[in-house]
Amino acid sequence: MTDLAALSLEERATLLSGQDFWSTPPVEAVGLPSLVLTDGPHGVRRQAGDLTGMGITDNLPATCFPPAVAVGNSWDPSVAERTGAAVGREARALGVHVVLGPGVNIKRSPLGGRNFEYYSEDPLLSGVLGAAHVRGQQAQGAGASVKHFAANNQETERMRVSAEVDERTLREVYLPAFERVVTEAAPATVMCAYNKVNGVYASQHRWLLTEVLREQWGFEGVVVSDWGAVDDRAAALAAGLDLQMPGDGGAGDRRVVEAVRAGELDEAFVDASAARVAALARYAGGPVEEVDAEGHHALARELASQCAVLLRNERGTLPLSPGTRVAVVGEFARTPRFQGGGSSNVTPTRVESALAALAALAGRELPFAPGVGADAMAAREEAVALARAAEVAVVFVGLADADESEGFDRTTIDLPAEQVALVRAVAAVAPRTVVVLSHGGVVSLEGWHDDVDAVLDGALLGQAGGGALADLLYGVANPSGRLAETLPVRLADSPSSLSFPGEQGRVVYGEGVLVGYRGLVTQGRPARYPFGHGLSYTTFSTSDLRVAVTGDDAASVAVTVRNTGDRAGAHVVQVYVSTAAGPVRRPLRELRAFTKVTLEPGESREVALDLDRRAFAYWDVVESGWVVAPGQYAVQVCADAETVLLEETVALAGDDLVRVLTMESSVAEWFAHPAAGPALAAALAESLPADAASPGDRELLLRMVGSMPMRRFATDFGSALPAGLLDRLAAETAAARAAR
Amino acid sequence: MTDLAALSLEERATLLSGQDFWSTPPVEAVGLPSLVLTDGPHGVRRQAGDLTGMGITDNLPATCFPPAVAVGNSWDPSVAERTGAAVGREARALGVHVVLGPGVNIKRSPLGGRNFEYYSEDPLLSGVLGAAHVRGQQAQGAGASVKHFAANNQETERMRVSAEVDERTLREVYLPAFERVVTEAAPATVMCAYNKVNGVYASQHRWLLTEVLREQWGFEGVVVSDWGAVDDRAAALAAGLDLQMPGDGGAGDRRVVEAVRAGELDEAFVDASAARVAALARYAGGPVEEVDAEGHHALARELASQCAVLLRNERGTLPLSPGTRVAVVGEFARTPRFQGGGSSNVTPTRVESALAALAALAGRELPFAPGVGADAMAAREEAVALARAAEVAVVFVGLADADESEGFDRTTIDLPAEQVALVRAVAAVAPRTVVVLSHGGVVSLEGWHDDVDAVLDGALLGQAGGGALADLLYGVANPSGRLAETLPVRLADSPSSLSFPGEQGRVVYGEGVLVGYRGLVTQGRPARYPFGHGLSYTTFSTSDLRVAVTGDDAASVAVTVRNTGDRAGAHVVQVYVSTAAGPVRRPLRELRAFTKVTLEPGESREVALDLDRRAFAYWDVVESGWVVAPGQYAVQVCADAETVLLEETVALAGDDLVRVLTMESSVAEWFAHPAAGPALAAALAESLPADAASPGDRELLLRMVGSMPMRRFATDFGSALPAGLLDRLAAETAAARAAR
Repeated sequence: MTDLAALSLEERATLLSGQDFWSTPPVEAVGLPSLVLTDGPHGVRRQAGDLTGMGITDNLPATCFPPAVAVGNSWDPSVAERTGAAVGREARALGVHVVLGPGVNIKRSPLGGRNFEYYSEDPLLSGVLGAAHVRGQQAQGAGASVKHFAANNQETERMRVSAEVDERTLREVYLPAFERVVTEAAPATVMCAYNKVNGVYASQHRWLLTEVLREQWGFEGVVVSDWGAVDDRAAALAAGLDLQMPGDGGAGDRRVVEAVRAGELDEAFVDASAARVAALARYAGGPVEEVDAEGHHALARELASQCAVLLRNERGTLPLSPGTRVAVVGEFARTPRFQGGGSSNVTPTRVESALAALAALAGRELPFAPGVGADAMAAREEAVALARAAEVAVVFVGLADADESEGFDRTTIDLPAEQVALVRAVAAVAPRTVVVLSHGGVVSLEGWHDDVDAVLDGALLGQAGGGALADLLYGVANPSGRLAETLPVRLADSPSSLSFPGEQGRVVYGEGVLVGYRGLVTQGRPARYPFGHGLSYTTFSTSDLRVAVTGDDAASVAVTVRNTGDRAGAHVVQVYVSTAAGPVRRPLRELRAFTKVTLEPGESREVALDLDRRAFAYWDVVESGWVVAPGQYAVQVCADAETVLLEETVALAGDDLVRVLTMESSVAEWFAHPAAGPALAAALAESLPADAASPGDRELLLRMVGSMPMRRFATDFGSALPAGLLDRLAAETAAARAAR
Repeated sequence: MTDLAALSLEERATLLSGQDFWSTPPVEAVGLPSLVLTDGPHGVRRQAGDLTGMGITDNLPATCFPPAVAVGNSWDPSVAERTGAAVGREARALGVHVVLGPGVNIKRSPLGGRNFEYYSEDPLLSGVLGAAHVRGQQAQGAGASVKHFAANNQETERMRVSAEVDERTLREVYLPAFERVVTEAAPATVMCAYNKVNGVYASQHRWLLTEVLREQWGFEGVVVSDWGAVDDRAAALAAGLDLQMPGDGGAGDRRVVEAVRAGELDEAFVDASAARVAALARYAGGPVEEVDAEGHHALARELASQCAVLLRNERGTLPLSPGTRVAVVGEFARTPRFQGGGSSNVTPTRVESALAALAALAGRELPFAPGVGADAMAAREEAVALARAAEVAVVFVGLADADESEGFDRTTIDLPAEQVALVRAVAAVAPRTVVVLSHGGVVSLEGWHDDVDAVLDGALLGQAGGGALADLLYGVANPSGRLAETLPVRLADSPSSLSFPGEQGRVVYGEGVLVGYRGLVTQGRPARYPFGHGLSYTTFSTSDLRVAVTGDDAASVAVTVRNTGDRAGAHVVQVYVSTAAGPVRRPLRELRAFTKVTLEPGESREVALDLDRRAFAYWDVVESGWVVAPGQYAVQVCADAETVLLEETVALAGDDLVRVLTMESSVAEWFAHPAAGPALAAALAESLPADAASPGDRELLLRMVGSMPMRRFATDFGSALPAGLLDRLAAETAAARAAR
């Protein structure tokens, strides 16, 4: 590690912020180079020219791989890892040392403007994919930055809004993906979010940046601010924020120095953060290989084909046969929408349209009509005429760039009206209709779903998405994606819909842990397509579930999967746990393990998955820790979050908690305690005169004051208790716990 | 006012708590009598014998009037006022000076165990009825105690749970009923709740008990604790809690004296609270009239008949004709359920069964089968046989005492399975089926609703409810109740269902202001029967809506109601306001005025209602006050919360707020300001070199950083701005506001 001791306080402080918009300052006295950090994560957004501005629209070309929304749908960590590796290689070639990604925030609402940059509404899926991306990228020598830490789940007022989230919800839903990435993949940096969490800016949230991230999870890298997220530089440093970005001309560094000189800030904070930033130099060097742009484009196409989700396929409409008379409809076929707007927007090396790729696979030009245009009616009629003459009409619809972006949230999940009209018009005349969707956030299928034969959901597939969609439509590739986000019937079915996106500076996470499918299945609200749903051109059977309890709080799962169809394909085994154990409300089921297996026709394989302690635990705010409650746990192998295929219920011994009673414990807790309860009941029965209260009175009294703190009960209602009894019993419970 | 100056600190402190369970201490030195406070509010629960115990099951007889759940359904303040007056007369006769009620807490969840003690899910309806009850009771010389202040909306962990509610939701939903009662009816006392509000016990919540209650609403009476609600006596006194109940043997008083002596508590708090308690003596005296028990029973029957809600009446099944061959089914017909369990449970002077009352009206015994019993199948078959032989089967079902009570929340809204089975069995064979419901909290009608012809919802009607139901069934009285609480299709449709009743010490009011119908109509979720629904044996037309704007922020409404049927009846005119104005999310519509009019057949009447400022206002947490946003407001006359009959939209000038800009204001707020925005834009355009950023960059930048505080933007992104410009513009906005 570089020795910074020779540097003055001022020199050390310069390490704590950028020298410009995108790079850290070199410190020549100790041989530290400048490092370049740029946006990612599905491609490198390296600004052209110098690094003094945001340069959002003028960037060096780089391969645009499938954005996180698509990688999420792959349910395949190898897709994430290979994406990360390729981005890492390109970063090195472009002189970039840290690529800012992946984003593992939870899709709390379908309306979130940046959902396309995130993987899923589920923390396990998000964490597994994010960790794989980091592993892949950092193995190529480019540092990662898992972001945006934490509870950055909307764009509305994102720079100021306070996300009001209870700790259990943070621990169970919004933090685990970060936790997994940090503990399993050791990212070079963690990027703090813009927003406040429970009233405190994430950039100066000591509990998040130091207690949770470093002390509990063991993070040893650099905490970097989101660009412009630092509010009070000295407070942020003390809270654990190492590197302020972008550079502010040294104002923040000067503030830090002043605070140290004034005795307001311990110089140790400067030293620790400067040392961490200096240690980033390990990403500075090494020889750089040239990137094979065509090879990366081909990789982007292959990865994209593993991300699309076949939502519906009636009458075996897909795949298309080479000889099928196909009409291609929709401007999205010719002009792909393949990534989202904002800081992650990559300048692609090339863009492949589905129209061209379909023609290449068909070996001929295909009839095409954009279906939309200045004269909407004429454009639609042209498309209808083509569709009528075809055997299958393939309609490409979706959201335009202007419909969604970083910077604002959507207000609807509806497709634009003219897109819906186009689908309906085509479906009314075409013998068969296939809809291909391009979008960042989920879009509703209501109004036309039942009228079409097949729906292939591409979300955003990157620059080679057109080729991937063509491969999937013609069966060159077999769809294997699964929805990483619920597609609800109505926006109002989304559990966050009552409180998203908040107002006047606050957003209350009122649904608690019941985010996404957790809320829908718990409330018994069917989705249009549930989390985890996705079809294949082949079929799979799942059988022979065996669950073995291992110890007090874990289990191993084995299940056999067989490809029962006639072509090779990949299947995602989804294991959920369902329980009512413990003193908190549990979601009806939660995804606890998954794996994607590829099988030849007729091939079967036994899949083994481990469920560790965390698969059964909830966060207990009283114990301030993870607790596995003794009780029954159903282990469910599901086709999706709504559909249980196989189930086995096991009993877990769980944690043997000894609750300590105090005078603040409730009357009910006292009576329920295995030792103190009977002693108290006996004393009460003895001390009360027989006629002081009828038996009915006594029962009613206990029901009515069960939640009263014992101290108040003793004063107001229990004056007949023997002196000292409660203190003695309380002390005994404390001793019993201490004896553990 | 009694002069307490002559008393020692210790003597004054004795006034701050009860001398026993139910009475205040006399202070003979200054001629202060002891006052008795007992439970209410739908009847006097005066403990038999001395006042040292809870005595819940051994009370002096008193008339049990319809509980609040029924009075809520009357939508008629005269019902509440006459109830209050009668209870006041009985209190005086029983030597009771303060009756603890009414309860005006909002029914946040259908599961709330004490919902039967509250009026409604709507704050206007709750407040109007509560104020009327207080007026009626206090006019008879018995003090009232509006309760439970505040946010006491569940029984689960009620003594310790913290209700986590944002201020707008408190101001718009949970506080207005208290505000109306306090400001319009000046109750003798306000009772603080057991629970915490945002982490602080209501009993020591200075903001609630002093800032809001006294300083903002002008309350001059006594704040009394719910029985056992005081946690820290000195803190409670300083927060504004005057009287601790029940007495704790002087422990609290001694603690107060110690705190004063130790300089921890200002003696002025003791003096102020003691003076308020002493002033209660105005309720001590005067001659007492004897109560006419039979007259009060008849009154209870008349009032009850105005509270039942006719939910459904197909084929004119009701009213019954005297000659109809009726079979009466269900134990509830013989053994009425007419009030709820817990502290409000009155020992009635007599109880009238529907079975007996129906027989009296029919002039003969009616065939009866309880339908339930030890041998469930035999009991049901007996009922089925009776039903098959009748022209109309009237089935009485509902919830038993054990199903709901103060002290615990329900976990389901389903009727017990054997009750559902009974209804289905009878409906399958009876030519016509009428269901009569008795329950405190709402019960689901799913599983049998479509199979029956009529549903008469009595909720809990008091000791004369059997007579009232008979009057309604035979058409001696005409139903005029309207649901004061939504009857949802499924429990999960209730907006609070994601977070009720919380866990581990906290309950997050995540649905915010979208409580009850506000949430359902906003989310487009149809109810089984919406808030405000209720039928009559006659029909009404509503026409000629005229809305006149009065000033910037109010309006007057006139509408004509005609009885278009053939019998006299009462109709509730419900006026809602619907708007999207302002920076907060508004419910789709909110009840803002109502009145009940009784009309002879063919009679019509013009009804005039005023909508004051508050009918259009929302609580603005930035302004810390009520704001009427300039904009469009639809005034809707509705049959119920889902059904708009007439509508007129008016434009209101609203409040002319001048927002002051600071460096913490967002970039978007700066650019949106009418004066500072253009000046800033011009300066930015001038100061940026032409090639510093492309136009696309600039637009994107503004979209992306719109929510960034200006201070940070100026440092990190806007360094080209002229020095001092922002300070000057900010100062100008402050000057503009000050000039108002």
